[in-house]
Amino acid sequence: MPYRSLDMTARFTATYRIRSDAASIGARAEAIAVEQSVEMPVPAIAEQEILQDILGRVEGIEDRGGGVFEVRVGLATATTGLEAGQFLNMVFGNTSLHEDVVLLDVDIPADLAAAFGGPNSGIDGMRRRAGAFGRALACSALKPQGVPPARLAQLAEQFARGGIDFIKDDHGLADQAYSPFADRVAAIASAIGRTRYVPSLSGDLDQMRRQIDAAQTHGIDTVLIAPMIAGWSNVQTLVRGHPDIAFFAHPTMGGAARIAPDLLIGKLFRLLGADAVIFPNHGGRFGYTPETCRRLADQARTPHGGIRPSVPVPAGGMTLERVPEMLDFYGPDAMLLIGGSLLAARDRLTEQTVAFTQLVAQHNYR
Amino acid sequence: MPYRSLDMTARFTATYRIRSDAASIGARAEAIAVEQSVEMPVPAIAEQEILQDILGRVEGIEDRGGGVFEVRVGLATATTGLEAGQFLNMVFGNTSLHEDVVLLDVDIPADLAAAFGGPNSGIDGMRRRAGAFGRALACSALKPQGVPPARLAQLAEQFARGGIDFIKDDHGLADQAYSPFADRVAAIASAIGRTRYVPSLSGDLDQMRRQIDAAQTHGIDTVLIAPMIAGWSNVQTLVRGHPDIAFFAHPTMGGAARIAPDLLIGKLFRLLGADAVIFPNHGGRFGYTPETCRRLADQARTPHGGIRPSVPVPAGGMTLERVPEMLDFYGPDAMLLIGGSLLAARDRLTEQTVAFTQLVAQHNYR
Repeated sequence: MPYRSLDMTARFTATYRIRSDAASIGARAEAIAVEQSVEMPVPAIAEQEILQDILGRVEGIEDRGGGVFEVRVGLATATTGLEAGQFLNMVFGNTSLHEDVVLLDVDIPADLAAAFGGPNSGIDGMRRRAGAFGRALACSALKPQGVPPARLAQLAEQFARGGIDFIKDDHGLADQAYSPFADRVAAIASAIGRTRYVPSLSGDLDQMRRQIDAAQTHGIDTVLIAPMIAGWSNVQTLVRGHPDIAFFAHPTMGGAARIAPDLLIGKLFRLLGADAVIFPNHGGRFGYTPETCRRLADQARTPHGGIRPSVPVPAGGMTLERVPEMLDFYGPDAMLLIGGSLLAARDRLTEQTVAFTQLVAQHNYR
Repeated sequence: MPYRSLDMTARFTATYRIRSDAASIGARAEAIAVEQSVEMPVPAIAEQEILQDILGRVEGIEDRGGGVFEVRVGLATATTGLEAGQFLNMVFGNTSLHEDVVLLDVDIPADLAAAFGGPNSGIDGMRRRAGAFGRALACSALKPQGVPPARLAQLAEQFARGGIDFIKDDHGLADQAYSPFADRVAAIASAIGRTRYVPSLSGDLDQMRRQIDAAQTHGIDTVLIAPMIAGWSNVQTLVRGHPDIAFFAHPTMGGAARIAPDLLIGKLFRLLGADAVIFPNHGGRFGYTPETCRRLADQARTPHGGIRPSVPVPAGGMTLERVPEMLDFYGPDAMLLIGGSLLAARDRLTEQTVAFTQLVAQHNYR
């Protein structure tokens, strides 16, 4: 575990583009620095080394005009654990929930670059695969999904005869009944000679590993993966564990636009199996409206295709004062989550927790 | 593999909210139905059963006023393979790259609900864990990251004495040097009696499984997971494989706002290890500007912390006519990807591929 020897004072810079008025940009910037690091009220932090080494630091604010600002925040490298999913979590995680913030840039210092490692093959390795130097590479895609492997192999063979360098699966080709991965790879690999076929990985880490193994038995050394769906930690593991494989990244779910929060968090996370779904309550640190929160809670609890209801867990800057109102708003089939404002009680943490749990236990629902 | 017996004609409905003018909404709706299913020119599809059973179908368009429309699209259930990551890919994947489209709703028919299964425990199971019926549940969070396990355990003990139902890790707590998962779980579990501690899972599927195992040895039966970071397939696998564990879903990276495409696809996918990064070229099906595409290609190739360059792969509705212009724009360290427009040649696929590869091989760069 390389991070155990990590310099605990190392930082890297993330840049956010924020729509804001000039009067509040300073506070917005500080709020992001807190959100993406300690995620609690700073005055409640007693430990000097946390304030020094862990708390995010606003490094600069630039007015880009038209109510747009760019804010640079120095984040502690140690908080990423040098692990790709946690890196994403620390760089944009909760702040992605603000619809007026775009993650614009991340400076990758040498320690981060070395820890993640980047491409195994890169441009040179891709050229070697294609035997193509000093010119651009050419690629096409196998479609549509729904046709059987034999038909895809026929298309691949035509592409190969046309001299293409790489033939990739359409990213919709996964492991469906009509074109199982193993059958597809076998059929296509035998149809294309030395042309590079790039099958699309899908499923969980185990399935993707099995798919790479299956591909390798057919001499395939290049695959397609969608990081926003596969999960960054799994991509990191597959890349580092397969130095001889080259990876195409597909941008699907690249997040240029939104999924309605009630759908994503209330309905789809429940479908996925979440027993409790945490979400930012209205009037807290995030911009969800009461209507969004009500719909989200409804989506989590309404009878739906025979699956169990999930507990809605409103959170995000909640305080004891808001407990009665939240209980009336969400009803008893809910869980209230209060973090930072309890921790701010410091020595009186237990007493404040008692106050919280008594409010919850003794409430008379309207 | 349950999907092998799937009804190949089953569909489910996804609803998208689109900013558009009235004159083009019909075409936009059809384009989404194609993008989220066959992803190629419909006239190039010869197979009648693909047009019948796989191609997405616009089921309705409603004008919500103010240049906003809601479009319902029927997607073939078979294309999801009943696999969570592929489900997300089919529901929003490439369409997420359009910044004027929001995924608004997905109707979950009984076959999908049964296949995914939803929560193992749900509200009832969470109540049983807390021994709390007829009232809301109460939860708090352990923060800040950076403090050692002993300090977190001390906070947890105070929460527990205050009578709280669930104590969750801050979602920033992963497996960092300053608070390794195993040490943290051991310390906290022994400090809280019968109160439920909810540790946060992070890392790849193997790491998350080990974390669940470690938690279970301390009697823990509830964990926190972030589906947008863990990867939906992995969440599905963990939920289904651990019927006795209850799962909190954390909304981090819930995608309410954007990551700049050049950063995400050009720089960060490269850092993650992509040897080639596919992205929508300007002037194609997606809205990226030439400037965004140029920055993205630069991010993929510029010397950076000693990691290898990635091949930029512009794609998304490209044609042979655009090859010379694209070669001049991206230079030779690039890969051109042309899919649907080659496949539209049908019987002349090989010849059109030859034309493509010759354009690439014989180009005189400006």
